[in-house]
Amino acid sequence: MPQSRFARRRRKLLARLKKLGIPALLVTNESNVTWLTGFTGDSSYLLLGHGFGVLISDTRYTVQIAEECPDLDVEIRDSRQPMHQAVARVVSTARTGQLGIESHSTSVASWEKIEEAVSGSHPPLELVAVGMVVNELRAIKDADEIAEIRKAVVQAQRGFAAVSSVISSEMSELQVAHELEHLMRRFGAEGPAFEPIVAVGARAALPHARPGSTRIGDSGFVLVDWGARTTGGYRSDLTRLLVTGKIPPKLEEIYGVVLSAQLRGIKAIRPGATLKSVDTAARRVIENAGFGKFFGHGLGHGIGLDIHEEPRFSPVAQGVLEPGMVITVEPGIYLPGRGGVRIEDDVLVTRDGHEVLTSVPKRFEDSVVEIG
Amino acid sequence: MPQSRFARRRRKLLARLKKLGIPALLVTNESNVTWLTGFTGDSSYLLLGHGFGVLISDTRYTVQIAEECPDLDVEIRDSRQPMHQAVARVVSTARTGQLGIESHSTSVASWEKIEEAVSGSHPPLELVAVGMVVNELRAIKDADEIAEIRKAVVQAQRGFAAVSSVISSEMSELQVAHELEHLMRRFGAEGPAFEPIVAVGARAALPHARPGSTRIGDSGFVLVDWGARTTGGYRSDLTRLLVTGKIPPKLEEIYGVVLSAQLRGIKAIRPGATLKSVDTAARRVIENAGFGKFFGHGLGHGIGLDIHEEPRFSPVAQGVLEPGMVITVEPGIYLPGRGGVRIEDDVLVTRDGHEVLTSVPKRFEDSVVEIG
Repeated sequence: MPQSRFARRRRKLLARLKKLGIPALLVTNESNVTWLTGFTGDSSYLLLGHGFGVLISDTRYTVQIAEECPDLDVEIRDSRQPMHQAVARVVSTARTGQLGIESHSTSVASWEKIEEAVSGSHPPLELVAVGMVVNELRAIKDADEIAEIRKAVVQAQRGFAAVSSVISSEMSELQVAHELEHLMRRFGAEGPAFEPIVAVGARAALPHARPGSTRIGDSGFVLVDWGARTTGGYRSDLTRLLVTGKIPPKLEEIYGVVLSAQLRGIKAIRPGATLKSVDTAARRVIENAGFGKFFGHGLGHGIGLDIHEEPRFSPVAQGVLEPGMVITVEPGIYLPGRGGVRIEDDVLVTRDGHEVLTSVPKRFEDSVVEIG
Repeated sequence: MPQSRFARRRRKLLARLKKLGIPALLVTNESNVTWLTGFTGDSSYLLLGHGFGVLISDTRYTVQIAEECPDLDVEIRDSRQPMHQAVARVVSTARTGQLGIESHSTSVASWEKIEEAVSGSHPPLELVAVGMVVNELRAIKDADEIAEIRKAVVQAQRGFAAVSSVISSEMSELQVAHELEHLMRRFGAEGPAFEPIVAVGARAALPHARPGSTRIGDSGFVLVDWGARTTGGYRSDLTRLLVTGKIPPKLEEIYGVVLSAQLRGIKAIRPGATLKSVDTAARRVIENAGFGKFFGHGLGHGIGLDIHEEPRFSPVAQGVLEPGMVITVEPGIYLPGRGGVRIEDDVLVTRDGHEVLTSVPKRFEDSVVEIG
């Protein structure tokens, strides 16, 4: 990726920091560091201020940083030097008076160590907790990021189509999950966006079921929640029900309710709509059908370098949609002991409405697969 | 797994807390929660005190918790209720006066929200930052955990043997990594312990290289750092060099130095030995050979539910080895632009010394593989 992209993002952040009156920010969230620098390793912080940007890393990454971020200054610590000391040294050189630190991704223990390490600074250095500033910038994707997410969608969808055609009643949840991962990679994915959820029959009532040894058998249905991660690090996230046999009428009923709710939610997506209003639009359909208490999670979340990022659709979310946001819409109804349905697509907010990026058919009759 | 195992661990923790004078602890680290409860989901905290233990989770996990932790009290929040409010409610019921919070796994933002949510408590509640108490208990594995790690070692080793036999010069780093993951699963692994490192030729000088599109070709050597994760969640971690063709004499030289250093480090492992002394034993061999500045990381780390956990071998580590610890020994020499060597095994501290759990041959001549 061209370095200019990262420099542009850092300039955007500096403009935001200026408005907030913060002279420098210590970026500790790994994905935020990647988004601002192109560096793909871990355990590294970025100190960014007006006129300087220093990546604080360790000897494992010296060569990689030279390749990935040739235009950044680097502070490399070795195994004798803990992170907080390296931070203190870089910060003391910058002499900013105040230092913002990302408070959602810095542990209390790290904060205290940094505070102690800079306690003797001249002039004194004041630490300030800074919220989701970088995360909020990341919520709005540029054209290159949207292209990456589209790639992740294609990889996930091709993998799913292929796994649907090889699925058999002898396969366990774990085997289906592994096969799906393997196939997505065949189609160019670096890996799965997250560990796929494959839940057979009544186990589909667990919204976050961990695939296990339960076999497809004659359970009638399987819930699959999966996505792909591109080599550029961007992710997709989908959920579909596969109907593999006879299913209880109740399940077909809730399938209809969830699908209506999902379509209603998607329809509400446009620039300026509040995050809460989109959640409400979908949730009301489920509540009106009498299943409100069986839909306990938020309606969706942003996707990008992380599988869960800003913004979030929920009954208590603040904020509005803006063009360039990419967010999942995934209502669900879960009946303990009986099974559950969730349907999930990825939606891009456009200038005048939205575009659904995912395209796996989702009418109930489309879900039926022949299994061996 | 039997519930009694988790109850026993919680009793151990309570005894430690009593010594520290802490009436209750909010466990926020995900693996610590798993280790204490058997719960395998995420986004959940455990509040543990004398006479009570409450798992604070959300509606996605209601059924799973009932299955995995039948003997624990549960506080389930829905999408309208943020975590810090649920914590405040549970804590106010417990009326402990003081509340310890794990400070290395709680963000400054979460801490501040919890602090605010409990600020009106009667009697007043004081928050206390608590260090790695649970992590230190986890450093010493019980017999069941050691058996799980042995399983992870077997899965990793069988996968590696199989991938060595199918490797070809046309394969890219990423293809080798994927094939290795796929094969470990065939041998029963739930998945990889971490994303494998496969680094061809000069790229082996990047200790944490991310597998890419570089092909094996006629580079001469490939560094592979990999491990397996069992369905029980335990991990193994190994590194070997595969010699696939003609390699520079310099590389063969550093191979010999790294192997000597590793054997020296392993030899130093016994109960009572300081973590620092083991690091020094291996590091001195590399320093004496003139490569000290090309070995920038610590000698090793504990493995278990996490791929990096307590204890750590490093030049600044505190503490001593105890029976039941399982730790990697992985010295390396990295020559920028030319390549690198790291050799890594997993070692159990026994009552009277150590046992090397991994057994992939590691003499230089053992590293040579025939490729198509």
